[in-house]
This record gives sequence, C-alpha cells and structure tokens, in this order.
Amino acid sequence: MREPVDLAHASRLVNHGPTVLVSAQHEGRRNVMAAAWSMPVEFTPPRIAIVIDKSTFTRELVLASGKLALNIPCQGIADLAYTVGSVSGAGEDKFAAYGIGAFDGPLLGLPLVAGCIAWLECRLISEPHAQDAYDTFFVEVVSAQSNPRVFAHGRWSFREDNAELHTLHHLGAGLFAVPSRTVQARALDRNLAKE
Amino acid sequence: MREPVDLAHASRLVNHGPTVLVSAQHEGRRNVMAAAWSMPVEFTPPRIAIVIDKSTFTRELVLASGKLALNIPCQGIADLAYTVGSVSGAGEDKFAAYGIGAFDGPLLGLPLVAGCIAWLECRLISEPHAQDAYDTFFVEVVSAQSNPRVFAHGRWSFREDNAELHTLHHLGAGLFAVPSRTVQARALDRNLAKE
Repeated sequence: MREPVDLAHASRLVNHGPTVLVSAQHEGRRNVMAAAWSMPVEFTPPRIAIVIDKSTFTRELVLASGKLALNIPCQGIADLAYTVGSVSGAGEDKFAAYGIGAFDGPLLGLPLVAGCIAWLECRLISEPHAQDAYDTFFVEVVSAQSNPRVFAHGRWSFREDNAELHTLHHLGAGLFAVPSRTVQARALDRNLAKE
Repeated sequence: MREPVDLAHASRLVNHGPTVLVSAQHEGRRNVMAAAWSMPVEFTPPRIAIVIDKSTFTRELVLASGKLALNIPCQGIADLAYTVGSVSGAGEDKFAAYGIGAFDGPLLGLPLVAGCIAWLECRLISEPHAQDAYDTFFVEVVSAQSNPRVFAHGRWSFREDNAELHTLHHLGAGLFAVPSRTVQARALDRNLAKE
C-alpha cells in the first residue's frame, strides 16, 4: 500500500532518525544496503545527507548513475534490514539471494524495496570533497511515497494497531529501537522553568 | 549522574537519530538550541555532522569559537527541548530566561545542559562550503559523558524502569517519538527469505 508524498513533506520522512535502506542500480546491476546515518539538510527543496562507506558496492552504483533511493524499513522487516546491512552485494544480487521484492520507482526507475513504509528517489548532488573526506553524499529528493497507514498528510502516526509499521533506529549489532510511544511537548514559560 | 564515555563509543550516542541540543559560547555569551538533524559520519575518530541554520545565534557562537557541545535530551525534559528549539537566544540568555541548569564541559569548558542523558564536546572542522551550501557542520568529538542508567559500556539500554531517560526523536511541532521498545534482528539465510 503506497501513496505519493508531497515533496514539501519528504524530509519529514527521515526527520526522526530512522535507519534507511539505500538502493541503486547501474547498467543492469543493482544493490541495496542499510544505512543508519542519514539526516535531512533542507525541507524545500527536500535535501538529505547520507553516509555511504567507500567499501560498499552501492557507492559504486551511486557514483556511476548519479541516483539513489532511500527506502524506510519497519519493525516487520527488521531481519531484512539487518541482513542487507551485514553482507556485500558486490558478488551477487542481494534482491535475488534473499528473495527481496522490488518495484520500479515512479520517476527514476530505481529498484524500491517491497515491504518498506516509505520510498524516496533522489538525485546525487556531486560534492566530491564531502564524499571523499566524510563519506557524506548530499542528495535531492525527486519522488516520495509512503504507506498511508503510518505516514499520511505529511505526518507519522505510530500507534498500537500499526506496530509492525514503526520505524527502526539502530542501536548496534542488529538491536533496533522502535518509536512505539510519542510525547507532545509544550513550550515552557519564561522564568518559570525552575519552579 | 554522569560517567565518561570512551571516545570510540561516542558516535553510538547519536547513531539512532535522537534530537540533540547544541550549546555554544563565545566571549561571555552562550546559547542552546535544539537540532533534529544530526548524524555520525565516522566512529574513529568520532565525527558528527549537524545542521545549524544561518538564522541562529548558536551558529554565530560556533563559528566564532570553533567549538560546540551536543547534549542529548530525554523524555523527562521534552518541554525544555521543545522550548529551546522554538525561541531565539540572540536577545537574552536562554539558560537564565528558562532556568536551565548548566555545568562546564571537562575539556573545552562548554556550557552543558543539566538534565540531559549524554554530553559531547566537539571541535569544529572548518568546511565553509558545506556550512554555506547545506548548513552542515562537521565536528570531532573530544569528550563524551553519559548517564549510566541509560547508556553504559558503549550501549543504550531503554527499559520500562528508565522511561524518563529515553531519547527524543522529533516528528514535528513538538511531537516526539520515544524509542520505548527494542527489537533484536537476526540475519536471514540466503534464498530463504521468500518462504
């Protein structure tokens, strides 16, 4: 189940720090890897920074094609997210090897990961220094979709009845935190915080 | 309550995407602001990227001093985190105006925010292009501390009995997700994922 997300809301999909799956393809080869390290850098236009290590096959595909997709996995596919973050795709097609479903992105035709809850197709903004010195890639989102059961009208909705669709936040070694609770903060009054 | 964190574990403090409070000072003026957008870029040495908007007073202090601190707030101080993210500190000292406690960082003497659960003192790595084009600041962590009730021996521990100390993950408009649950993923076997 998926619906288009307004590009003005695309950065909100990664605002709260979820682990993402990065997928890419070039000349008939494709790959998907997990990345715990990403962040928005701008709402309009929607731009995101993401760390992609020099050792990864995905990095080769991204640099060759100038494109990548961010797929946001959920609790229901935590094993898949962990697995694609643990093995290299240089020697085989991970989609085939692990039976991972994929469908074509609407604008760039990138391989999007079935079972995720949001999908962003992105164009690479070439920044060779940041890529080389910090493994940091800046991208601009050009299409966004979400599963409306958990993200609709520009907002996440984490509830008891959609727990399988909650985002994953990597603590290390395959242990993920899941934002199953929310808290609404209120603004403090000036000079009253001490009381 | 706080204990030193091994610098090799410092990036783990922000690995799962929590909102952070950025504090800085220069020539007797200080400030603190909230930032939803940060990510590690390296474990060793521990380096972090963080977005600091051009409109903020904190940015002036960071650029003038070459230093900043990341303070990780928790559910128990969600109102404080939201408030310092909603008002500017250009005209007044937010610490005084809102009764926010502060103590000196051990290495750089930066104002660290009381009531948080982790504190990282960082030196700015000057990257004028990334700062200008993407508001992205790369920093290197030089001291790290945590509240051992929730982060000890390099690991987060989110449990029922320390719910007030769980991290905040900003969804927008003061609504924060809280990682109150964890899931341990296991690696999938090759060619078995379909079954």
